[in-house]
Amino acid sequence: MKDETNAAPAAHPFDRAIAMRLLPDGNFLARTSDDYPNHIGFFGGYVAAVALNAALSRPDRLGDPVALTVNFAGPLVPGEFSIDIEPLRTTKSTQHWSIRLVQGPEREVKVSALAVFGLRREVWDHTASRPPQAPPAAECAAVPARFSGWFRNYEVRVPGGEEPAGTGELSSWQWIAEKPARALDFCALAAMCDSFYPRLYLKRPERSGVVTVSMNIYFHVDARILSTNGSRPVLAQADSQVFAGGFYDQHGLIWSDAGTLLASTHHIVYYR
Amino acid sequence: MKDETNAAPAAHPFDRAIAMRLLPDGNFLARTSDDYPNHIGFFGGYVAAVALNAALSRPDRLGDPVALTVNFAGPLVPGEFSIDIEPLRTTKSTQHWSIRLVQGPEREVKVSALAVFGLRREVWDHTASRPPQAPPAAECAAVPARFSGWFRNYEVRVPGGEEPAGTGELSSWQWIAEKPARALDFCALAAMCDSFYPRLYLKRPERSGVVTVSMNIYFHVDARILSTNGSRPVLAQADSQVFAGGFYDQHGLIWSDAGTLLASTHHIVYYR
Repeated sequence: MKDETNAAPAAHPFDRAIAMRLLPDGNFLARTSDDYPNHIGFFGGYVAAVALNAALSRPDRLGDPVALTVNFAGPLVPGEFSIDIEPLRTTKSTQHWSIRLVQGPEREVKVSALAVFGLRREVWDHTASRPPQAPPAAECAAVPARFSGWFRNYEVRVPGGEEPAGTGELSSWQWIAEKPARALDFCALAAMCDSFYPRLYLKRPERSGVVTVSMNIYFHVDARILSTNGSRPVLAQADSQVFAGGFYDQHGLIWSDAGTLLASTHHIVYYR
Repeated sequence: MKDETNAAPAAHPFDRAIAMRLLPDGNFLARTSDDYPNHIGFFGGYVAAVALNAALSRPDRLGDPVALTVNFAGPLVPGEFSIDIEPLRTTKSTQHWSIRLVQGPEREVKVSALAVFGLRREVWDHTASRPPQAPPAAECAAVPARFSGWFRNYEVRVPGGEEPAGTGELSSWQWIAEKPARALDFCALAAMCDSFYPRLYLKRPERSGVVTVSMNIYFHVDARILSTNGSRPVLAQADSQVFAGGFYDQHGLIWSDAGTLLASTHHIVYYR
């Protein structure tokens, strides 16, 4: 299967993981990656990147990603899956996609996603937010792998090299880059939007299961600006507002080291 | 058509607007409302409420809304439309829906939405955000109708009765309630998530077209807690972070007058 996809044999693990084969009907076939396991199923960031990559890989795709919503209906099981993708509507400046990751003889929907692509234009621009005051990545220390899963594909750097668990503060930031180094693109950026330490664990010492139910990403740059980042780490900032009835929110901003807001992300997470 | 829907003849305009008829195949038929026009098409909040109401009206619906994403592919034209709705997956505690508003002989997708419903449980709760310091609604003055469209269905109250246009600040709040009074429910809350004064106009005096491309809502209370609000105004707070390349973000929080966070919302808006 791997040889039939759009990833070169010697490609980066992330490129191999998100590779897919275009079918004559415009849908895709892919296979789960052994490099991005999670406690249950697979890393949500990798799954979001697969969904986005399907739209990016369509020959009739217009412009760059603007918005991506990924709803996690159930965990992918290891093996092959289908990506059903539909261009719902294309206008002069925007394009709407529906994307579903489907698996098994019953064609169970494991992931449902919506994406909006758009053509960005020269127009009045303004950034109201500012990145957090953070020392350069080179002055921070790498966080040891949290667990044996997907985290090994990232180098996360914070002062002192220790994630801020149990401080009672919900807001934190980290430098993050792919390991081994890889030039940042929209798929990698989407995956990084799910790389945050779960906010629940910052506030409540007792560990319990957390599962992202829905993840929303807005992209704020086009492919040209994004490409100027190269493989340099980005500054990822996260916070939460409310934990109520078994669902909590999490929001994040991803900044380039030059202070450009690359993406903002919002999650709703099931917890026990 | 109206007589066949689930709205009583003497119902509130909002109930008439979001009424729909369940078809034997589980989909719905509805008709655009003359009460919620916008500059182009219809009020996005009303459209979001229609999408949500379809899932709420399904006999196999599980629990309460947790997340709703509404992507606006194109404006509804006045008249009938179909609501194609599909339960993608139901687990013990969550349910995933796909909802599409479809119109015309070509069955054009005008709106595509995803919703997650869930059963909320008694569990550790925590709210980190606080509502803005605002005088009670009764001490604020009603804002005159911005235009002759959907805004007439709302009473918006701010100190002095003037919306904070062109102050250069992106952050603002308003008290909002339905007019005439109506007990708050999930559909009304979803609609109010789109009631904010466009952030672009707060920062850039020159008016130009703005169109919401995608709107995301997280609900933070269950139906029982929401019902305690009755018809009292809620405090709606909005901000923006970045205007870039013709798309800007907008985020909002909706608080009860008792200080409970009812919903958070995120939008990406096309601008010229």
